[in-house]
Amino acid sequence: MSKIQFQCDYNEGAHPRIIQALTETNMYQTPGYGEDEFCSEAREVVKEVCGRPDADVHFLVGGTQTNATVISSVLKPYQGVLCAASGHINVHETGAIEHGGHKVLALPASEGRISGTQIRAAMASHLAEDGPEHMVQPGMVYISFPTEIGTIYSLSELRDIRSACDEYSLPLFIDGARLGYGLMSDACDLTIKELASIADVFYIGGTKQGALFGEAVVITRESLKKDFRYCIKQGGGMLAKGRLLGIQFRELLRDGLYFELAAKADSQAMRIRDAFKAKGYSFLVDSPTNQQFPILTAEDIERLDRDFAFSIWQKIDEDHTAVRFCTSWATLDASVDRLIASI
Amino acid sequence: MSKIQFQCDYNEGAHPRIIQALTETNMYQTPGYGEDEFCSEAREVVKEVCGRPDADVHFLVGGTQTNATVISSVLKPYQGVLCAASGHINVHETGAIEHGGHKVLALPASEGRISGTQIRAAMASHLAEDGPEHMVQPGMVYISFPTEIGTIYSLSELRDIRSACDEYSLPLFIDGARLGYGLMSDACDLTIKELASIADVFYIGGTKQGALFGEAVVITRESLKKDFRYCIKQGGGMLAKGRLLGIQFRELLRDGLYFELAAKADSQAMRIRDAFKAKGYSFLVDSPTNQQFPILTAEDIERLDRDFAFSIWQKIDEDHTAVRFCTSWATLDASVDRLIASI
Amino acid sequence: MSKIQFQCDYNEGAHPRIIQALTETNMYQTPGYGEDEFCSEAREVVKEVCGRPDADVHFLVGGTQTNATVISSVLKPYQGVLCAASGHINVHETGAIEHGGHKVLALPASEGRISGTQIRAAMASHLAEDGPEHMVQPGMVYISFPTEIGTIYSLSELRDIRSACDEYSLPLFIDGARLGYGLMSDACDLTIKELASIADVFYIGGTKQGALFGEAVVITRESLKKDFRYCIKQGGGMLAKGRLLGIQFRELLRDGLYFELAAKADSQAMRIRDAFKAKGYSFLVDSPTNQQFPILTAEDIERLDRDFAFSIWQKIDEDHTAVRFCTSWATLDASVDRLIASI
Amino acid sequence: MSKIQFQCDYNEGAHPRIIQALTETNMYQTPGYGEDEFCSEAREVVKEVCGRPDADVHFLVGGTQTNATVISSVLKPYQGVLCAASGHINVHETGAIEHGGHKVLALPASEGRISGTQIRAAMASHLAEDGPEHMVQPGMVYISFPTEIGTIYSLSELRDIRSACDEYSLPLFIDGARLGYGLMSDACDLTIKELASIADVFYIGGTKQGALFGEAVVITRESLKKDFRYCIKQGGGMLAKGRLLGIQFRELLRDGLYFELAAKADSQAMRIRDAFKAKGYSFLVDSPTNQQFPILTAEDIERLDRDFAFSIWQKIDEDHTAVRFCTSWATLDASVDRLIASI
Repeated sequence: MSKIQFQCDYNEGAHPRIIQALTETNMYQTPGYGEDEFCSEAREVVKEVCGRPDADVHFLVGGTQTNATVISSVLKPYQGVLCAASGHINVHETGAIEHGGHKVLALPASEGRISGTQIRAAMASHLAEDGPEHMVQPGMVYISFPTEIGTIYSLSELRDIRSACDEYSLPLFIDGARLGYGLMSDACDLTIKELASIADVFYIGGTKQGALFGEAVVITRESLKKDFRYCIKQGGGMLAKGRLLGIQFRELLRDGLYFELAAKADSQAMRIRDAFKAKGYSFLVDSPTNQQFPILTAEDIERLDRDFAFSIWQKIDEDHTAVRFCTSWATLDASVDRLIASI
Repeated sequence: MSKIQFQCDYNEGAHPRIIQALTETNMYQTPGYGEDEFCSEAREVVKEVCGRPDADVHFLVGGTQTNATVISSVLKPYQGVLCAASGHINVHETGAIEHGGHKVLALPASEGRISGTQIRAAMASHLAEDGPEHMVQPGMVYISFPTEIGTIYSLSELRDIRSACDEYSLPLFIDGARLGYGLMSDACDLTIKELASIADVFYIGGTKQGALFGEAVVITRESLKKDFRYCIKQGGGMLAKGRLLGIQFRELLRDGLYFELAAKADSQAMRIRDAFKAKGYSFLVDSPTNQQFPILTAEDIERLDRDFAFSIWQKIDEDHTAVRFCTSWATLDASVDRLIASI
Repeated sequence: MSKIQFQCDYNEGAHPRIIQALTETNMYQTPGYGEDEFCSEAREVVKEVCGRPDADVHFLVGGTQTNATVISSVLKPYQGVLCAASGHINVHETGAIEHGGHKVLALPASEGRISGTQIRAAMASHLAEDGPEHMVQPGMVYISFPTEIGTIYSLSELRDIRSACDEYSLPLFIDGARLGYGLMSDACDLTIKELASIADVFYIGGTKQGALFGEAVVITRESLKKDFRYCIKQGGGMLAKGRLLGIQFRELLRDGLYFELAAKADSQAMRIRDAFKAKGYSFLVDSPTNQQFPILTAEDIERLDRDFAFSIWQKIDEDHTAVRFCTSWATLDASVDRLIASI
Repeated sequence: MSKIQFQCDYNEGAHPRIIQALTETNMYQTPGYGEDEFCSEAREVVKEVCGRPDADVHFLVGGTQTNATVISSVLKPYQGVLCAASGHINVHETGAIEHGGHKVLALPASEGRISGTQIRAAMASHLAEDGPEHMVQPGMVYISFPTEIGTIYSLSELRDIRSACDEYSLPLFIDGARLGYGLMSDACDLTIKELASIADVFYIGGTKQGALFGEAVVITRESLKKDFRYCIKQGGGMLAKGRLLGIQFRELLRDGLYFELAAKADSQAMRIRDAFKAKGYSFLVDSPTNQQFPILTAEDIERLDRDFAFSIWQKIDEDHTAVRFCTSWATLDASVDRLIASI
C-alpha cells in the first residue's frame, strides 16, 4: 500500500465527519428501512439543496442497484433506455438492466455525451418504421453527469436534451454518481437546482464523494413517484438500517461539505491536468472534473507506476496508452505535489 | 424514542468494536469491490470458523439481495425453489425471486420449518406428472436457520433434508440472516461446521447480529462457485467499498464476538420467555432464539405499549394477538429487567 | 389409435369449415403479422359478437403465450396477479408468469373459483401491512371461465368480482380458453356481451373449440390497449402469417359456428354426466361444461380403459380416483352412445 | 391485392402438399404437445436429413419464440449472446432476448456476417478486463444462415467460427429461418449435414419456406438437450396441437420438397438480380439467395410500385434507396417474367 493512490475515487472509507456522525448516532434506536428521523431530515436537506420541495427522495446503497431500480420502475416491458454507448449501464453493470428485462439502446457517444439531436433522431427513426412494434421502443433517456470519462454537459445541452425528451414524452434520468465533481467544475455553467429542474429523476452520488456508500435518488416527475419503495425493496436496495444513509447524506449536505470536497478534488485534478499539459502531453478527452486521462508512453507509465497507482484505460496506438488519474475528497495536496513533481 | 425497543434486531448501528474497526481503518487505501486485504482476511476467518478451507466466501450488503443473487445463480430458467410458505423469500421480499424469473414453490410450514419428507413428496409428485414439463421444476431447496419465527431445525432434521436433496440432486441453500441466534440457542444440537457440511450454500447474517450491514455467503458445493462475482455485480450487490464488509466480518468472527453476542441475546430472550410463561401466557410458537411471540390480550398490549416497542404479529382470535419481542446484541440487561417487571 | 378419445379437447385438427376456409384462401397474398384483411374482418366480427365496437382485438396462437403476454402488459414489476390456486397460470404453465417477473398470488379455490370477497380480503390485508412494500402488491385478477375443472361463475359472482376489482382499481382478466363451453352451458346465466362488459381483458379460445389454434384477445379497458402489439411481438406471439388466425376466427364467429359446436359438446358431456349419475357414481365436482370428472374404482378404470381414452385426474382415496372425460366439437354422438353403454 | 407481391416470403399460406397433408390427417386423434406420431416421424426425418441420429429435435411455431427459447435455455443469467449488429435478435424482436434477461452483445457486421476473428477478439477483450465481472460475459454465439440481408457464410468461415467457439467453450446457435434458401444457393459450398456438424443448435425454418408456420430446432450438443421441453412450454411455444408441426415438417422433408422449393426461389431471385445488373443497377449487398436489394432512384421506385409490391429497405443517399425483392416457394415464373420486363 505504499504507492500513492490515484486509481479511483473510492479507495478510502468516508470523510471523518461522516465517521463521526455514524459513531455519535450509533446507539440511537430507530425504525428500519429508511423510516427513521435521520432519513427524514436528510430528505428535507436534499429537497432544499435541490430547490424541489415537491420531490420524492430515496436513499440506496450503490450505483448499479440505483440504476437498475430506477430504470425498471420507469419502463414498460417492451421499452428500452436510450444511453451513450459508453454509459455505465451499457458497459459496466454486468447487464443489470437487461437482467431486469430491458434493452439498453446505445447511441454513439461524443466524449461520453449524447445530444438532443440524437434522441430526436432515434425516436423519429423508430416511429418511421413500418412496424415499429418489431423493435424495442425507446422509453426513457439515461445520461451521466459528469460522464464516465469526466466530461460534462452545458446547461444549453441539457436543455436541448430535456426538450427532445418532452417532444417524445421520454422521462430523463441523470446518473449523478459523481454529481458534485461535475457541478463544482470551473467548466460547469449550471447549478444543482437547474439540474433538478431538468431531470425527471436523478441521483446525488455519495459513494465516490465522501460517504462510505449511498446514492440519493431525487424524483421530481409526479408520475414516477408512485410505489418506488416497492421497487427498491424488490431490487434488494432497501437497507435494513436505512438510517446509515440518512446520517451520511444529512452530514454531507447540511452545510455544503459535499460540494466543498468536490470542488477541492476538481481543483487538484486541474493541477494534474495542467502539469501534464505543460509537459506537452495530450489527453484522451478534455475533462474538467476529477478524472484525468493523459496519454502516456510505456516508459512514462513504468516510471510513474513506481510511486503512484493509476488505471490503464485504453490503448491509443502501438506506443501510447491513455491512463486515468482520479482525485477525490481524500486526495492530499502533498500527493498531488509529488505527482506533479514526477510528471 | 423514549420507549425501550424490542421491535426488531436492527434498531441500532453496530457493535462498538465494529465502529472502532471502521474508524481505525478509515483512511487506508484499498482496491474496491471486495478485492482488498480486509476481505481476504475475513474470507480466511469465515472458512476457518466453518471448517471449510475449500469454500468460496463472498460478502453482500443485505438479505433480500443475497437471497435473490444466490437463487438466481443456482436455478435454470424453468426451475423454482422449494420453500416454507412462511419463508422470507415467499412473503417479505416483494417478489424479488420472481423478478429474477423464478417461482417460489411454497410448502406448508410446520412452525416455520419444512421436512425432508415434504421435499421428497414434492419431487415425487412432480416426476409422476404426465407431462412434468408443464409445471415448474423444483431446482433447489431454501430454508431459514433459524426460521422467520425463531424456531430451529435439529441436526437430524437437517440431515434428512440433506438426504432428500441428495436423492433428487437439489442444492440446499440456508438463509442465515439470524444464524448466530440459532446456533447459540440452548435447543440447538449442531455447530456451524456441521451446518456448513450440510448446506451447499448458506450465509452468516451480519445485519441483525452486530454489524452495520452485511451477509457472508459461503459456497461449499463446487458446481455453484463459478462466476458468482458476476451474479453479485449484476444483482447490484457488489459494494464499491467492499472493505467495509471485510472489516466488519473480520471483527465479528476473528475471536468469537459474533457468537458471544448471539448467545447473550438468546439468553435475554429466554428470560423474557420464562417471565411470560410464569404468568401463564401461551405462545404462537415455542421459539428457542432471540424472537419471542407471546399471545396477549388487547389490555396487555396497551399496557406494555406504554413503555416498550414491539411488533404486532398475528391476530389469534377476537381477544388475542401474538406479538413479537426481539432481543439483539444491543439489548441491555436493564431493559429486559424492566420488561420482566412489567409483564 | 383404436380407442375412442375423451382425453382432451384438442385431439383432432380443426372443424372442416376451418380447413376449407384455410384451403380456399391459401394462395391469397396478404401482409404479415395480423395486418391483413382477414384479421380486420375477424376483428370486426369479434367486436360485434361481444357488443364492444370500442374494443381492441388481437389474435395469438396459444393460451400460455396469451396469459403471459396479457399479464406482463398489465402489471408493474413489483405487482403480482391474484388467481385461484388451481388456476392454469399457477399450475400448468411452467412458471411463464414468473419468467416474466411476476408472482402468482394464489388464493384457495372453491371448485376452481375465487370470489370478490377473497379479492377484497387480499387487498385489505396487503394494505393493512405495516410496510406493504415488503410484499408483492396485487396488481390484477385472473380467473378462468369456465375454470380448469369445468365449473363456471354466475353473473352475480362475476359482478361481485368486478365490483371488488373496481374498489381496488384492479384490472380483471378472464382466461377463456374454453369460453364457448362455459357460455353455452345450461347452467350459465350470462352472455358473451355481459362477460365483455365485466372483464377488462379476456380471450375467446379457439384451440379447444374448433380451430387448429388461436386465442382472440379482447381488450375493453382503454388504459390496457396501448402498445399491445409490442407485447405480443416481444412475447413471441406475433404469427408471421397472422391471417391464419383471422381466417379461423372469422369462420368460427361469423355465423355462430363457435357457439353451436360448444353447445353440442356440452350436451354430450351432460349425457355422459347423467349416465354416470344414473349408475350412482359421484363426481370430483359438479361441472356443467364439456369436462366431466366422475370418481371411479380401479376396476371401473381398467374396464373403461379398454375402449376409451380419458385422463387420470386425481387420487381420491385408496380405492377411488377422479378421472376426466372431455367432449369437444369433434366428439361423435356414436362415441358418446358407446361410452354410455359401457358405463 | 392486384400488385404482384415480392414484399416478403410469407405472403401466402402453405405449399399445396402441406394443405393436403393437414386436410387428410385432420380428423386423426392424437395426443397433444408434440407427443404424437406425426412429430415422431418428422423428428426421424429431420435427424436423417441432418445426418445426426443423436440429435434432439423440437418443433416451435415462430422464429422470435424459437430464438428467445433457445438462448434462454443456453445462457446463465449474467451471460450475453454475441451477434451481428444486424442480427434479427438485436433488431427485430422487440427485445425478446433482453426480456428473458440477457444482453445481445452486438458486433459490427460485414454484410450481415461476423467472423471467428471477431469472436476471439470479443472474448480476449472480455477476459483481459481488470474486473471482467463488471461486464456481461459472452456465453454463446448467434449467427443467421443466410443472414438477414441474404448473404451466406462459406464452409471455411463457419469452420473458423466453430473453432473460435471451441477455443472459448461457446455454444454456436444458427438461426435458419431461411435455411433452405441459403443451402440451395449456387454460392453455397456446404450441405445441411456439414452445417449440422458445426452448429450446437440450429433450426430449419418452415414459416418462410412452404409451411403455414413452424421452425424445427435441432440440438446436437449433448449438454444443451436436457429439459428443453420445459423451456418451450415456459416460453409459450408448446403448441397444443403439436401434430400440425409434425405433419408439416414430415411433408416438407420426407422427399426433398423443402430444398426443391428453396432452389426454385433462389433461381428466380438470380434472374431478378441479373436483370437489375444488366441494366446497370448496383446492390446494397451481393446476395446469392432469395432476397435481392437493388438500389433504385425515386422514379424507379415509383414506376415499379405501380405493378409490384416490394419493401423499402434503406436510404442510401439523397437520390437512391435500397429496396428488397423477395422470392419464395410461391413465386410464379410469370411474375418474375413481368418484373424483369418492367426493370
